[in-house]
Amino acid sequence: EDKASEIASTANTPALAYALKVKESSQKSALSYDIVKSLTVEVGPRIPGSQGDKRAVAWAEAKLNDLGFDKVYKEPVRVRNWERGFADAKVVSPFPQELIISALGGSIATPESGIEAKVVMFDSLESLIAADKATVQGNIVFLNTKMQRDKAGRFYGKVVPNRVSGAVEAAKQGAQAVIIRSVGTDNSRFAHTGVMRYDDTVEKIPAGAISTADADNLAAMFASQQSSAEDIILNINMQAKDAGWQTSYNVIGEFTGSEKPDEVILISAHLDSWDEGTGALDDGAGVGIVTAAAKLVKDAVGQPKRTIRVILYAAEEIGLVGAYQYVRSNRDTLKNIIFAAESDFGAGQIYQLDTRFAEDVRNNPADLYAALQSMGVELGNNTTSGGPDVSMLPNYGVPVIALKQDGTYYFDYHHTPNDTLDKIKPEDIQQNQTVWAMITAYMAMSDFDPRPAPKG
Amino acid sequence: EDKASEIASTANTPALAYALKVKESSQKSALSYDIVKSLTVEVGPRIPGSQGDKRAVAWAEAKLNDLGFDKVYKEPVRVRNWERGFADAKVVSPFPQELIISALGGSIATPESGIEAKVVMFDSLESLIAADKATVQGNIVFLNTKMQRDKAGRFYGKVVPNRVSGAVEAAKQGAQAVIIRSVGTDNSRFAHTGVMRYDDTVEKIPAGAISTADADNLAAMFASQQSSAEDIILNINMQAKDAGWQTSYNVIGEFTGSEKPDEVILISAHLDSWDEGTGALDDGAGVGIVTAAAKLVKDAVGQPKRTIRVILYAAEEIGLVGAYQYVRSNRDTLKNIIFAAESDFGAGQIYQLDTRFAEDVRNNPADLYAALQSMGVELGNNTTSGGPDVSMLPNYGVPVIALKQDGTYYFDYHHTPNDTLDKIKPEDIQQNQTVWAMITAYMAMSDFDPRPAPKG
Ligand SMILES: [Zn+2]
Ligand SMILES: [Zn+2]
Ligand SMILES: [Zn+2]
Ligand SMILES: [Zn+2]
Repeated sequence: EDKASEIASTANTPALAYALKVKESSQKSALSYDIVKSLTVEVGPRIPGSQGDKRAVAWAEAKLNDLGFDKVYKEPVRVRNWERGFADAKVVSPFPQELIISALGGSIATPESGIEAKVVMFDSLESLIAADKATVQGNIVFLNTKMQRDKAGRFYGKVVPNRVSGAVEAAKQGAQAVIIRSVGTDNSRFAHTGVMRYDDTVEKIPAGAISTADADNLAAMFASQQSSAEDIILNINMQAKDAGWQTSYNVIGEFTGSEKPDEVILISAHLDSWDEGTGALDDGAGVGIVTAAAKLVKDAVGQPKRTIRVILYAAEEIGLVGAYQYVRSNRDTLKNIIFAAESDFGAGQIYQLDTRFAEDVRNNPADLYAALQSMGVELGNNTTSGGPDVSMLPNYGVPVIALKQDGTYYFDYHHTPNDTLDKIKPEDIQQNQTVWAMITAYMAMSDFDPRPAPKG
Repeated sequence: EDKASEIASTANTPALAYALKVKESSQKSALSYDIVKSLTVEVGPRIPGSQGDKRAVAWAEAKLNDLGFDKVYKEPVRVRNWERGFADAKVVSPFPQELIISALGGSIATPESGIEAKVVMFDSLESLIAADKATVQGNIVFLNTKMQRDKAGRFYGKVVPNRVSGAVEAAKQGAQAVIIRSVGTDNSRFAHTGVMRYDDTVEKIPAGAISTADADNLAAMFASQQSSAEDIILNINMQAKDAGWQTSYNVIGEFTGSEKPDEVILISAHLDSWDEGTGALDDGAGVGIVTAAAKLVKDAVGQPKRTIRVILYAAEEIGLVGAYQYVRSNRDTLKNIIFAAESDFGAGQIYQLDTRFAEDVRNNPADLYAALQSMGVELGNNTTSGGPDVSMLPNYGVPVIALKQDGTYYFDYHHTPNDTLDKIKPEDIQQNQTVWAMITAYMAMSDFDPRPAPKG
């Protein structure tokens, strides 16, 4: 008797046998790494609606077809295309120096001649909001909040409001522009971009991020001033523009279920990226992980009983646009989704499985949970909202899971030019691939049904 | 009896007592860090001949005066000012992507419309030189040699000829331009600049460095080509320019010797930096270390018996220009230099003292060598050429020393925008300061005379 059937014979359930079989083959496969390598080398940056995005869509269709998915199709998503353009910042006085700046995604441009004004520094969005308007009026606001390193990336949520809402709050206080300390954990001169928002009732002002090293430098200038009466004058010039509506696509590949084709295992990532890096960690890694997982399951177990659907979402970065479109376009069939999940936190190893499963059956796949422990993955809570692009699905009763990854270094690279392939360790992305493949195999080959998701 | 005289009484010689006294006070002082912080925050980038360089000279004079040096003066140095300008590189086909590029220092510009040509990749300068000219003619040469990480930075010398001589060798083979994989040990998207050379007998072509991550990406494109017949087309546009002659200065501060004012302890660093970072490691750290060492010695031991001369050299980066000028301007008094040394390898801790002392007396300061062991510094060879700006002095019989620093991470940041203050650990630069102060105190207060330096 062969090795695979030996493994199978040790399994508690037939479904687990399949999971263990794909575990073995995945541990010999570099497919997820090869996929993200192909995406970053052959496509690279792919901001929604850009030429890179269009090439990414073509690449994804070709890749899914090449891998032998039964069905490969795409669904249109209307996206607003934003172009970064030139960006420049310099301290004019008292200590003339260039600062490294990136426009935040969606920011309006400065006038062509730039904006030159006094800088007022705040350590948090709260202190900006609480400030005397007279001290802010006409100035450039500098939000200088540090972000702490953390395995789970828990401090992102605390600092990201600076990026998302800094422009609105600074404009309410009469500022001409806002710059933020990058939302990142590195000490380097890469600025971290990311989406920002305007409010139609508040004047729009330009918004950029400076690198953490430049934020330290600028903050130190305040301490080096001869007197507090001496102003720090900054000149910023950013020529970003709104390039209008474009069509992007959610790209979808399926291995159709042999027994229950209407029951869907939905695993996903987002195809778009920011424009300065090659989107290796965010979210090429996820694209590689879920695509490889589906393919490895097919190769190891044959045609799945349930349908495995891989969705590579459009335009996550500018507000889950592809994901919301998917819900609108597929409202009637959401009920067929057994569970949904997204990989979108880089390629660090998975250490925890969180779920949002019907409470009464949540512990039924105990054999799967036990098998995942051999991969270093512990069972966590049952209250997750899943990854960003599946986070709206529990509202429709769709169960979700989240495979929590070690994100200790994720925010060193996130949304910077430095998000490139070399940041992915082959052994780490392989562990991700294996965990996703095991869960996908188990769920595609079992009758376990966690529907409906409990309400939040 | 007070603490200092207790320490003194345990010393073998009076000179050692002074060294131990300044060791104690240095270990409570952050002066070297404060100096490099002031330089990077208040001046920042200072490429020879630039406005930043002029500000750095003024800063240095003011700083030495503020610290109470007896004599502060400057000596003019004619330097060629080079301006980086705009730089851009993109793969045109088959995989359109931007690459991060920096012009090498001294490079000519491309035509205003850039250069668009096929890329030919070589793994070393030797393989470029050995190539069939027909394969290179009219193309863009890509020199893709990796640099290994090393505590002593020993692989810099092996790879830096790509940067210095790549343009000449590529032009000899008929190339239109050359790009090199950055001479650096990081995996990031910072390009490492640095000086390059032309040869008057060979056509000048533009030369740039791409980041290591971009070099990996570009190399991977060759592997992803559909066939080897498919060319990789690159467009590079760099608008560097020679901005003509300017006057810079070697800035010099002295504590004049009370007993032997004509005997000089020469400790040095270079004041200039490349233009993309703030020159914290290269060589703000050195400026902080030697300036602080001299000041701490003065404070701890009073007026030194011999003169302590701190030289902050101009224009090291473009070929030791200030150092050669110093030799020309001071030829007659070089014989008075007891020893010379330069700190120019960042702020990693010192682990070895190399010397170039007259052989017969080299081991006389055994008590100093033993005391340095308590700082983690072992005695090394007697064949060093010292740091860059003092490397020509042994030819004139001037003894030199080299304090070897841990350079494991130095070439991650060297000559990049990422050479900023946050890369310096206060405890590391303090160890440097203390070791330099101990040696300076010992040599300034003793009769030990290592002249003349043995010939190389
Ligand atoms: Zn993402
Ligand atoms: Zn993102
Ligand atoms: Zn240097
Ligand atoms: Zn240098």
